[in-house]
Amino acid sequence: MKTDVCEMFGIEFPIFAFSHCRDVVAAVTNAGGLGVLGAVAYSPERLEEELAWIDRATNGRPYGVDVLVPGKIDASAREGGDPLAAVPAEHWKFLTHLFEKYGVPAPELGRGANADKAARSGSRAVTGSGATELIDVSLNHGIRLIASALGTPPPIMVEKAKAAGVPVAALVGTVEHAARQVAAGVDLIVAQGGEAGGHTGEISTMVLVPQVVDAVAPIPVLAAGGIATGRQVAASIALGASGVWCGSVWLTTEEAETPSTVKAKMLAATAKDTIRSRSRTGKPARQLQSAWTAEWEGPDSPGALPMPLQMIVAEAAMRHLVKHAENGNEGATQLVNYFVGQVVGLMNTVKPAKQVVYDMVEEFADSVDRLSALTAQD
Amino acid sequence: MKTDVCEMFGIEFPIFAFSHCRDVVAAVTNAGGLGVLGAVAYSPERLEEELAWIDRATNGRPYGVDVLVPGKIDASAREGGDPLAAVPAEHWKFLTHLFEKYGVPAPELGRGANADKAARSGSRAVTGSGATELIDVSLNHGIRLIASALGTPPPIMVEKAKAAGVPVAALVGTVEHAARQVAAGVDLIVAQGGEAGGHTGEISTMVLVPQVVDAVAPIPVLAAGGIATGRQVAASIALGASGVWCGSVWLTTEEAETPSTVKAKMLAATAKDTIRSRSRTGKPARQLQSAWTAEWEGPDSPGALPMPLQMIVAEAAMRHLVKHAENGNEGATQLVNYFVGQVVGLMNTVKPAKQVVYDMVEEFADSVDRLSALTAQD
Repeated sequence: MKTDVCEMFGIEFPIFAFSHCRDVVAAVTNAGGLGVLGAVAYSPERLEEELAWIDRATNGRPYGVDVLVPGKIDASAREGGDPLAAVPAEHWKFLTHLFEKYGVPAPELGRGANADKAARSGSRAVTGSGATELIDVSLNHGIRLIASALGTPPPIMVEKAKAAGVPVAALVGTVEHAARQVAAGVDLIVAQGGEAGGHTGEISTMVLVPQVVDAVAPIPVLAAGGIATGRQVAASIALGASGVWCGSVWLTTEEAETPSTVKAKMLAATAKDTIRSRSRTGKPARQLQSAWTAEWEGPDSPGALPMPLQMIVAEAAMRHLVKHAENGNEGATQLVNYFVGQVVGLMNTVKPAKQVVYDMVEEFADSVDRLSALTAQD
Repeated sequence: MKTDVCEMFGIEFPIFAFSHCRDVVAAVTNAGGLGVLGAVAYSPERLEEELAWIDRATNGRPYGVDVLVPGKIDASAREGGDPLAAVPAEHWKFLTHLFEKYGVPAPELGRGANADKAARSGSRAVTGSGATELIDVSLNHGIRLIASALGTPPPIMVEKAKAAGVPVAALVGTVEHAARQVAAGVDLIVAQGGEAGGHTGEISTMVLVPQVVDAVAPIPVLAAGGIATGRQVAASIALGASGVWCGSVWLTTEEAETPSTVKAKMLAATAKDTIRSRSRTGKPARQLQSAWTAEWEGPDSPGALPMPLQMIVAEAAMRHLVKHAENGNEGATQLVNYFVGQVVGLMNTVKPAKQVVYDMVEEFADSVDRLSALTAQD
């Protein structure tokens, strides 16, 4: 199962695991893949702690970090602005109404001491200087990959990474974007189909991957979107990819940070139960359908705000809702959701992350054996 | 490349070609695949002629027929109704306005001698008795497969086919539908991802195929949606499919019936240039984006009608528009479109249908060799 990216990163299996949970990152790296920590929600201080933990847990094995550097964000969130103040009152009012409708005790939202610090820091991470701080922290640790989750990585990211000898990856949803990423100096392209969780376009993995592979050769391409099993890994490599980038599948692992109410929803969900919605970040992102996504599409909705304002609104509400859902509040349980791809329909059991990797490798081999037998007959 | 469906149908390659064009059907069958004629637009008399032609052209080699038997259609189109009369005046008025806006000479629409006979017969084919007539005609010819393009095949179709010893196939877009099809007695399942052209759901091929394969085993499954190259065939089989069902890729072949203005649009289109829209049939169907799909989503649109009323409206207009587009009318050229999947982004050259089959087979072998080499190293 060794492809060119295995050589490039010194890994055994070309399985890249995107996760916000350090335990998943370390488990996949230690199982022979490459864990990538999603850093956007962290302050520089917190990221420092997480990476120090991962360094210890992985003992020199390769892992990476993913930062979100969107091309377009709301003007209020640029340097010196106050994105929290830019959230219209009607959006806080809509949340208050939502909490009332679903019988969830409402917090004081968006004001004074209750203004959510974590939401502020999350929105700050998507600005240029915020992301640069996260990049600096990351490059001071043992990372072997830095990825840009949305849009072309800024020159400063590519320069700093190259100076540190760390390869840069970027996610793309169209073949046109891939060409731009290559021009920006990216070393690895993640071609992510519209079935993926999180920020995605609409072109499916099956169509996108071969097009991107042909467009950026000889730069290696990882397939993302719709991949949770070894058959899907084999299919990705059959399409020309050098490996896979998976995010959703780790959310129902033993190690995952996923709240138990959300995990239960994911285990029960079918492939039909996701939706591309702007309701969590302001940009279209695939996530579990829930009362939350329905209400933001509903008649009372003030509409999603641009990034990162919608992130401030949504994350403040979600943290609160998760807390109440975990305490058994029924309305909160109806509302909570999380980013996940259509493969949620294949995520039906809780396993250790290591086991997910091993199962993928085993099923991959079976799938390739089956294919090889077909050509051997001819 | 021989799978169980090759045995089942006596074919060399597990490549099934859905086309409304008899030349494509015959070419694929003669190249070692299995051509399937989309019969919905034909009157029983016309279908009789087409199948007689295919019988002669294929000389006993296997081919099939596809009929459209939707579960839900507008009440007016059921037995004894008058669907043409059920089309609201405002829909004809919208078309008249559209023709004027785009500078296309308007026909008299939806009335008297100008009421479109072909549209009537097309809408008739989707009713129970209309479809039954097409099934009867088909079973009097050398068909080796009968497929139901939308919804569970009616008992009469399964009974008649079984009595004639002809396997029945059905298209599904969710794993739940697949279970219903199996209960209805279907012999072959086509798992069609949301990236496909025509009537589709939203679940991608990469996610749908392994789920359906597991759910209906040992009934064989063909993958559909996003498949135009040998790498995609290899990926489909890696996912567990026994073969592929392709529709879009034939539309830009030499033999295709596609009007030259539409063919030119397809050759130029990227994977982003399709949309799932109700504007041609009343049910969500993926097609080329054009002024037509934009106008039906626009502020002046009266909204799409239920099937088959929207088919009557759209087909009457499209036939007229294609005629004018082919004569160089610019507005008509902006409006014309056709059903096609996201793989339109990979359809960039005109080839004979036979060559498409051979290219798929060759690229399939290369893709499998590459995969086999990866496992051989381990």
